[in-house]
Amino acid sequence: MKIYGDTQSGNCYKIYLACRLLDLNHEWIDIDILKGDTRSAHFLKLNPNGKIPLLELPNGNTLSESNAILNYLCDGSIFYPVDNWSRAKIHQWQFFEQYSHEPYIAVARFINKYLGLPEERRDEYYAKQTGGNKALAVMEEQLAHARFLTGDTPSCADISLFAYTHVAEEGGFALQHYPNIQAWIRHIKMLPNFVAMP
Amino acid sequence: MKIYGDTQSGNCYKIYLACRLLDLNHEWIDIDILKGDTRSAHFLKLNPNGKIPLLELPNGNTLSESNAILNYLCDGSIFYPVDNWSRAKIHQWQFFEQYSHEPYIAVARFINKYLGLPEERRDEYYAKQTGGNKALAVMEEQLAHARFLTGDTPSCADISLFAYTHVAEEGGFALQHYPNIQAWIRHIKMLPNFVAMP
Repeated sequence: MKIYGDTQSGNCYKIYLACRLLDLNHEWIDIDILKGDTRSAHFLKLNPNGKIPLLELPNGNTLSESNAILNYLCDGSIFYPVDNWSRAKIHQWQFFEQYSHEPYIAVARFINKYLGLPEERRDEYYAKQTGGNKALAVMEEQLAHARFLTGDTPSCADISLFAYTHVAEEGGFALQHYPNIQAWIRHIKMLPNFVAMP
Repeated sequence: MKIYGDTQSGNCYKIYLACRLLDLNHEWIDIDILKGDTRSAHFLKLNPNGKIPLLELPNGNTLSESNAILNYLCDGSIFYPVDNWSRAKIHQWQFFEQYSHEPYIAVARFINKYLGLPEERRDEYYAKQTGGNKALAVMEEQLAHARFLTGDTPSCADISLFAYTHVAEEGGFALQHYPNIQAWIRHIKMLPNFVAMP
């Protein structure tokens, strides 16, 4: 299988990390958003929504959306238990990630780290701090009750949220205010075969 | 089971519709966001993220995020087939909905229909049109190949996307430019036990 991505993108790093945790054989194809790789006719044919990561199977089938790819690849592993309720809670955290976490934390990081906090996006950057800290507070509260987001064992939910949370400081978020999140980050880094964002 | 929601919200209507399509026994508890119901201490205890819809089971367990609730309730039905690839494609469309569709189409509708397009949010409203039309174009292209988003039979992906798409005109989006979407809306309205947004 082929994975199109950019390991500096948290959404892509979820898949990069899962492939290592599960020791999955794959071909990684580097894509540079800033150079327009996701707007090429070839790429838009693979994913009309023009986003990475993208999974392409040997039969030509494609799958987009980081969390959909993650769950598909983790099926059959401890990270995606088969029971209905466990999966529902994993999905809950992943939709939370895409709606209430990523649009604040990842976008603030992008504006700061990749664009160099240009004057014209400063207001947007500061506006993102409120929503991002709200998302971190929701995680902090949950992690007061359990070692991982959905219980005592790690799941796809943790891989999904880890991606942008562990680099949230690059978006201006002070993780020292979130001791439960800091402990959780340490626990994820201790997983067998863990690999850091390159 | 109890469902906390507002049927005028597309995210809540997904659950309202699924309960009718599947004839699920439930108690619907009306929540008014504009009156601050989701910010009450009681509600925040049920969902620290302060959002509806919310599912509460008889054992006290709670589940948030509309698409997570939808998949949980549709498990065992034709709308959420058991095979791994079908589910992966359903999840793909649902994450697309929450990241690339809802933040444009639902927010434009909210600004226009519920806030009355106030002067101070007009720029935001017009900015939402580009992203919303891009999302509709992605759906239009997919629906050129299949009757429903994931194939010839309806799935949770269709329920998820139908919610805000069929009322997109309330957000200023002209559905007459999207004939495949218009046909798809007609097909969904023909499903047995279909119920319109109240």
